[in-house]
Amino acid sequence: MNFDEIHNRVGTHSVKWDMMEMLYGVSPEDGLSMWVADMDFQAAEPIQNALKAMLDHGIFGYYGDDASYRAAICWWMENRHGWTVDPASIFTTHGLVNGTGVCVDAFTQEGDGVVLMAPVYHAFARVITAAGRRVVECDLRNDNGRYEMDFDAWDQQMDGSEKMLILCSPHNPGGRVWTREELEGVLAFAKRHDLILVSDEIHHDLVFPGATHIPMANIDGAEERLVMMTSPSKTFNIAGTHCGQVIIPDTKLRAKFASRMAALGLSPNAFGLHATEAAYSPEGAKWADAVLDYIDGNRKLFDEGINAIPGLASMPMEATYLAWVDFSGTGMSMGEFTKRVEKDAKIAVNHGPTFGSGGDNFLRFNLATPRAHVEEAVKRMQAAFGDLQ
Amino acid sequence: MNFDEIHNRVGTHSVKWDMMEMLYGVSPEDGLSMWVADMDFQAAEPIQNALKAMLDHGIFGYYGDDASYRAAICWWMENRHGWTVDPASIFTTHGLVNGTGVCVDAFTQEGDGVVLMAPVYHAFARVITAAGRRVVECDLRNDNGRYEMDFDAWDQQMDGSEKMLILCSPHNPGGRVWTREELEGVLAFAKRHDLILVSDEIHHDLVFPGATHIPMANIDGAEERLVMMTSPSKTFNIAGTHCGQVIIPDTKLRAKFASRMAALGLSPNAFGLHATEAAYSPEGAKWADAVLDYIDGNRKLFDEGINAIPGLASMPMEATYLAWVDFSGTGMSMGEFTKRVEKDAKIAVNHGPTFGSGGDNFLRFNLATPRAHVEEAVKRMQAAFGDLQ
Ligand SMILES: Cc1ncc(COP(=O)(O)O)c(C=O)c1O
Ligand SMILES: Cc1ncc(COP(=O)(O)O)c(C=O)c1O
Repeated sequence: MNFDEIHNRVGTHSVKWDMMEMLYGVSPEDGLSMWVADMDFQAAEPIQNALKAMLDHGIFGYYGDDASYRAAICWWMENRHGWTVDPASIFTTHGLVNGTGVCVDAFTQEGDGVVLMAPVYHAFARVITAAGRRVVECDLRNDNGRYEMDFDAWDQQMDGSEKMLILCSPHNPGGRVWTREELEGVLAFAKRHDLILVSDEIHHDLVFPGATHIPMANIDGAEERLVMMTSPSKTFNIAGTHCGQVIIPDTKLRAKFASRMAALGLSPNAFGLHATEAAYSPEGAKWADAVLDYIDGNRKLFDEGINAIPGLASMPMEATYLAWVDFSGTGMSMGEFTKRVEKDAKIAVNHGPTFGSGGDNFLRFNLATPRAHVEEAVKRMQAAFGDLQ
Repeated sequence: MNFDEIHNRVGTHSVKWDMMEMLYGVSPEDGLSMWVADMDFQAAEPIQNALKAMLDHGIFGYYGDDASYRAAICWWMENRHGWTVDPASIFTTHGLVNGTGVCVDAFTQEGDGVVLMAPVYHAFARVITAAGRRVVECDLRNDNGRYEMDFDAWDQQMDGSEKMLILCSPHNPGGRVWTREELEGVLAFAKRHDLILVSDEIHHDLVFPGATHIPMANIDGAEERLVMMTSPSKTFNIAGTHCGQVIIPDTKLRAKFASRMAALGLSPNAFGLHATEAAYSPEGAKWADAVLDYIDGNRKLFDEGINAIPGLASMPMEATYLAWVDFSGTGMSMGEFTKRVEKDAKIAVNHGPTFGSGGDNFLRFNLATPRAHVEEAVKRMQAAFGDLQ
């Protein structure tokens, strides 16, 4: 667990490092890659061991008998989140973008509205639009430098054509861990407008001391309309396995989802199943604690360095490894501050507007990288915006 | 490449060995597993090396930049099949059952008919039915102990509600390699009834000396209605990677398929991409030649031994590693001959009726296993049906 170790990912088919130049014009030669949400750390030892055992066996045929895989998921949710999962309620999708796509397919019709609290993880809107549904953006309020929900305003917006709400909990890119009161508000809102409530909790393990993540499944009365989505891919840096879990307590909703899964012929790959089972273990838990602690250190360093630059404000992170930096205090145009980050500081980051309404004037920085990279990024940012001092 | 080596797959999450008892009542202790279509051989060295390189790197993040993966596919199709593929025409699905599901979704509507030539690989019908489409079974003729097409009869069957035809080429379970004349007949049939033509060519590399596989893409005039499906998973025994290719030459059809892929948020896993690229290489080709030669030996041994049992007839295999054995000459009921195979010979096999119309009185035996297993299977079969001698 040496998170300080720098691994060269160039030439490994890493989208983060091998496509940064094409997408952001930042060369991996002298650039830092802080965009797409994976880590520059090696996966946890139990995962490496499980994959090594697969390789030693050397036969990669059809996977069957997933009872121990399901049991591992149930164990993790119970022990880490106080959430009791019925093994029969778990579907395995090819990651949660795919999980979102199957939800949209299973629970909505063409033309239906799907509600997002903007800004939010960009792939939701991409999938909704590609499926011929309408994205209904409900703007999160940002009065005090953190996102808050605004149910009164949102109630006014609804016109009855909305059928689903996708919640991102904890919140990417804002780093919020929603409180019990907020989650109850979300459920009440979903009930008022009769929305299927999809809760994407992929970042649930990456919660810093001081905040506590509450699974939507533990909010009273959610069950009848609830779809939970989780995955070990963020926590354990195994996004390449493309393996996610869609967990549906209600049997009627479950049957609808099952029917789409069958029609689409979706069944999971063996590597994702082995890796997930290995991750959701006591040794996996130790690694998850350690990586969170390390990212917490990165976050403090980053926030301190960035907030020292006049006009820049890194939104306080309660969770995730994604820092959401507000440049509006600089008075600069989007083009100008983005140029400074990409061309001067040579850092590849996600552009705010990708995340929808409210994303203008923001850039998202991925902090799941060796500390030396974060230090270097802060130094370069201070130089690139040195004229503001 | 020691295909004789016996690897114990019990306890490795192999569906073939770990679920044989539950599904067929044959214990892995003293039983032989000859059902689901994967091999009991270790994967080719270039694949093992590629996966090992991934493990040595140890970071399993998002995969990007798939140009070399696409190039490897194009190289294989050109060099092994004389088929020129445009890299931009390749979609990667989570295997070909998923590929079939997305085709059904993209190119048909609820209630539409999808034509299958029965008997055929069972998952086609499963996916079509789950999607609320109708399976239209066109019976293959079996007058001379091999399957033949019967376009005159099939023309009578069509009522205009059919929108798609799924061809299995080479044919599972019959082992036929369709001739150019037959493929031209399929295309003419698809044109007459205005059907999208999906050609599942997953077994295209597993063709024995004497027969030549012709890709449907090389039949003049197919392009405008053609969807090709291929995968290295059968040839290279990597079904667990769940990675298949759907290749669509026509740009309009391609756009429709692309739209469903985007709506479903489908993108491939890194293990499948790395393994596919490694398989489709000169070293992979050597392994494919060697495994085919070995299976050819198994096939001769199996056919000789089975055909020596009065009343049993193994259909001549031109391709695949799946032997299709006709028990009708025994005069026994399905229950009786199946009991003898499962309870007396202790062999787990696929049941004929699963493959649809024409499957009664057949069992399917998987020969991609060490020779000693095939020899033992023949011995047990001769004993189990000894009273017929
Ligand atoms: C909220 C959220 N959901 C889903 C994903 C991606 O999921 P997957 O890689 O499993 O498709 C991400 C990745 O950043 C995310 O932040
Ligand atoms: C004709 C055919 N298509 C598809 C498949 C399965 O494809 P996949 O494992 O890629 O879903 C098989 C497996 O036996 C097959 O025989």
